[in-house]
Amino acid sequence: MAELTIAEVPLRSRLVMGTGGASSLLALEDALVASGTELTTVALRRFSPGVATGDHGVWALLERVGIRALPNTAGCFTARDAVLTARLGREACGTDWVKLEVIADDVTLLPDPLGLVEAAETLVRDGFVVLPYTNDDPILARRLEDVGCAAVMPLGSPIGSGLGVANPRNIEAIAARAGVPVILDAGVGTASDAALAMELGCDGVLLATAVTRATDPVRMARAMRFAVQAGYDAARAGRVPRREQALASSPVDGVARAGNLDLAL
Amino acid sequence: MAELTIAEVPLRSRLVMGTGGASSLLALEDALVASGTELTTVALRRFSPGVATGDHGVWALLERVGIRALPNTAGCFTARDAVLTARLGREACGTDWVKLEVIADDVTLLPDPLGLVEAAETLVRDGFVVLPYTNDDPILARRLEDVGCAAVMPLGSPIGSGLGVANPRNIEAIAARAGVPVILDAGVGTASDAALAMELGCDGVLLATAVTRATDPVRMARAMRFAVQAGYDAARAGRVPRREQALASSPVDGVARAGNLDLAL
Amino acid sequence: MAELTIAEVPLRSRLVMGTGGASSLLALEDALVASGTELTTVALRRFSPGVATGDHGVWALLERVGIRALPNTAGCFTARDAVLTARLGREACGTDWVKLEVIADDVTLLPDPLGLVEAAETLVRDGFVVLPYTNDDPILARRLEDVGCAAVMPLGSPIGSGLGVANPRNIEAIAARAGVPVILDAGVGTASDAALAMELGCDGVLLATAVTRATDPVRMARAMRFAVQAGYDAARAGRVPRREQALASSPVDGVARAGNLDLAL
Amino acid sequence: MAELTIAEVPLRSRLVMGTGGASSLLALEDALVASGTELTTVALRRFSPGVATGDHGVWALLERVGIRALPNTAGCFTARDAVLTARLGREACGTDWVKLEVIADDVTLLPDPLGLVEAAETLVRDGFVVLPYTNDDPILARRLEDVGCAAVMPLGSPIGSGLGVANPRNIEAIAARAGVPVILDAGVGTASDAALAMELGCDGVLLATAVTRATDPVRMARAMRFAVQAGYDAARAGRVPRREQALASSPVDGVARAGNLDLAL
Repeated sequence: MAELTIAEVPLRSRLVMGTGGASSLLALEDALVASGTELTTVALRRFSPGVATGDHGVWALLERVGIRALPNTAGCFTARDAVLTARLGREACGTDWVKLEVIADDVTLLPDPLGLVEAAETLVRDGFVVLPYTNDDPILARRLEDVGCAAVMPLGSPIGSGLGVANPRNIEAIAARAGVPVILDAGVGTASDAALAMELGCDGVLLATAVTRATDPVRMARAMRFAVQAGYDAARAGRVPRREQALASSPVDGVARAGNLDLAL
Repeated sequence: MAELTIAEVPLRSRLVMGTGGASSLLALEDALVASGTELTTVALRRFSPGVATGDHGVWALLERVGIRALPNTAGCFTARDAVLTARLGREACGTDWVKLEVIADDVTLLPDPLGLVEAAETLVRDGFVVLPYTNDDPILARRLEDVGCAAVMPLGSPIGSGLGVANPRNIEAIAARAGVPVILDAGVGTASDAALAMELGCDGVLLATAVTRATDPVRMARAMRFAVQAGYDAARAGRVPRREQALASSPVDGVARAGNLDLAL
Repeated sequence: MAELTIAEVPLRSRLVMGTGGASSLLALEDALVASGTELTTVALRRFSPGVATGDHGVWALLERVGIRALPNTAGCFTARDAVLTARLGREACGTDWVKLEVIADDVTLLPDPLGLVEAAETLVRDGFVVLPYTNDDPILARRLEDVGCAAVMPLGSPIGSGLGVANPRNIEAIAARAGVPVILDAGVGTASDAALAMELGCDGVLLATAVTRATDPVRMARAMRFAVQAGYDAARAGRVPRREQALASSPVDGVARAGNLDLAL
Repeated sequence: MAELTIAEVPLRSRLVMGTGGASSLLALEDALVASGTELTTVALRRFSPGVATGDHGVWALLERVGIRALPNTAGCFTARDAVLTARLGREACGTDWVKLEVIADDVTLLPDPLGLVEAAETLVRDGFVVLPYTNDDPILARRLEDVGCAAVMPLGSPIGSGLGVANPRNIEAIAARAGVPVILDAGVGTASDAALAMELGCDGVLLATAVTRATDPVRMARAMRFAVQAGYDAARAGRVPRREQALASSPVDGVARAGNLDLAL
């Protein structure tokens, strides 16, 4: 599997992980390691005085296991808040990279297309490496690329739904045209969803709860790792066409008879 | 991945390969090795005097690379022909195992349910280890198990169609109830199809042209190997439920502010 | 809409109704009339002494509104019981017609393919007009036609599931090849399911609970009547092909300008 | 079927027709009449001096058969052009109503979400009754309503594709939340697509080539009329739930016996 290069940074894993939903830091660490990821999103939230964080926090965890942190702007409902949060994240995490989320409302958790483009433009001008979480509209994806985003990250289906890729044609259309990496973000529920995303032409898959909320997160993380590899290879192996009619693979031109048989290829 | 045991024979790979459609023995060998398979179907056909076979045949190939041969009865349109062919295969190949096909016609290549049960009963009485290629009817699958088949091998979609799993509920129902291994046989077109079959509860996947007729058979063989592993693990990791509503993975309860922020888990 | 002819009997409606699930005879009557059906299945069951039936029974109802009764063999788990029940139904109802059900078990309610063929053969020899409830296997459908059934009635999905047509290709294949009427039986949940079945080539649709258990059975009966008509016409109107690429319907070759515009066709 | 009210104008038909793709004005007229539509889109294009229009044009046709014309802005790739075209259309057709299209490119024919909102805002301020053709993003649909559109018209799938409703959950979500009529626009290929759109909660369906390019446009127009009626009723009849398990409609609690049988309800 070739490296995935985002903003000139090569990544050996095409699985981007999220940290949301993990039951504990220990469980999270095991799952992250099992996934093989080299890029993991982290959310910023209000400081809670009573909670000790220090070395036990996600930040320290990622540093220890050598995974690059990707601050996100989860919880931001306007372009203004997302831009502010991104800047705080840059300061706090020492990275220009940001997973940009501008969420329209807290029920659908769908991106706000207009706010997203506005925030992306601002952050690109501000020197950020912007990876926007977007819907599966090929036109919006193109626009985000045009304003300078380093990747586009369309949803398969709503965040946390586990419904997989709701509209495969849209994802395929986005991937076919994009000049930057396309990472499916949101909706993955199980391994075949991740494999399908790669087969549709995605360059990577981002997921969180599919692993962190699985009964056995480590096993699901491993499944996702295999699935991304499987989909990556399948996308490049030249699959057989879909046919409405059956097509024999074994010869049907004769029946074996004693004394004159052979094994067919 | 635990071994797959059929008729008390353990197999480390859950990918059963077919040989049909390969462009050459050399290409076939590379693909078989890349797939990791330990069980491969071979068809019997009329002896063609002009064709040299000898050591270069499929039979010799499987012996050399240490893969167990599974003679099939492809090309048989009646229970009688299938039973005859199975017996010739046993004699020729020195194995009691048979992939039983009783094909209804050469257009649909669908199994004939009545002929299939009849041939299965005869062959089981005759001491064969019978692995029948069947449609995706849960009732027929149960019947085949009841008459003593060592596994049941329902189709995902018609042979050579590459349409994947047409009716996932049927495959899931067959796997949920079966007391013998269930191996998806026919219809797999790409890696995500194989992963899905395993996630639905299948114990293995049988495929031929998806690999042999891919542009790059070795790469697709490898993709299938990863996909089966991915689906196997995903099926056992306890996937998240499908939800019609979105569910936040990252906290949405606050906006980060300078001076009092922290990284959220 | 042309008449549907089964065993030389013309029916103006292509909607066959079932009576199961109705909350009362009155509600049933209203729904049957709204549906426009001319053929309705009735189940036979043990006589319950405490229950007054007489003129208020289903039988009397159908006679009164002029709908032909189609006795079924629901509740029969063997060919033998189905044949016995069919004969009792013939005696009781004075009709040679029978909807043949041989159910494999009371969980899946799926047909038993072997018992079904056996019972069909017996009943055809016995002079019945046999309309078998079958799975969606094109080979079994063909076999049922070959043994002399007057129609074949494949399921869309399991009885009472409301899941619609699970495998459209199978239904289309059955309809394309059949020499007798094909009536989709089981699985219809809503109007678009019925329209789709007709578009796939079915000659009629049989349903019960989709109407009888709807909140407003009369309204759903009317919806089904329209849907069958819609699907019937659509199947004969030569639909546009499915295209992976968009295709403009309105002209995109120019922009209107004041002074020289016209309305485009 | 209750009237569909858009901008206080009641329409008895919930089928909005387009004129694109018709082979002749005569064929178009027959199809429009068969569809029962009361609202039909017309495109504006450059005046072609050699072409006689006069009484034989679409405009005269709609006047003659008493169908309200809905000028569209097809062929406009920017908000500016769309606004200009809408104003010309108002002048030419004497109506404030406009079907607003701002197309991103002439390959996908998908709407440009940002240009669409911009043009809609301008036209609403300008006193137009704006019916925008939009993608299936629930957030964009809400935004269009918020800026004052009189209806929202999300696509089922790309224009002219005939692929039906690609993402039913999105259409359902748009319809569930909208405070203005929702009309599925684009992608309908056959009658069941139209029925499904109505079942998902749409208030109407707009289609052109599905009828005009069918082999028999009049028959398909009639099919669509029935389908919209079927879907409208089905959406209001309270459909049965989807069940993963079968549910008997007929009694399975006994077998009929001679002398003590009765017809079950």
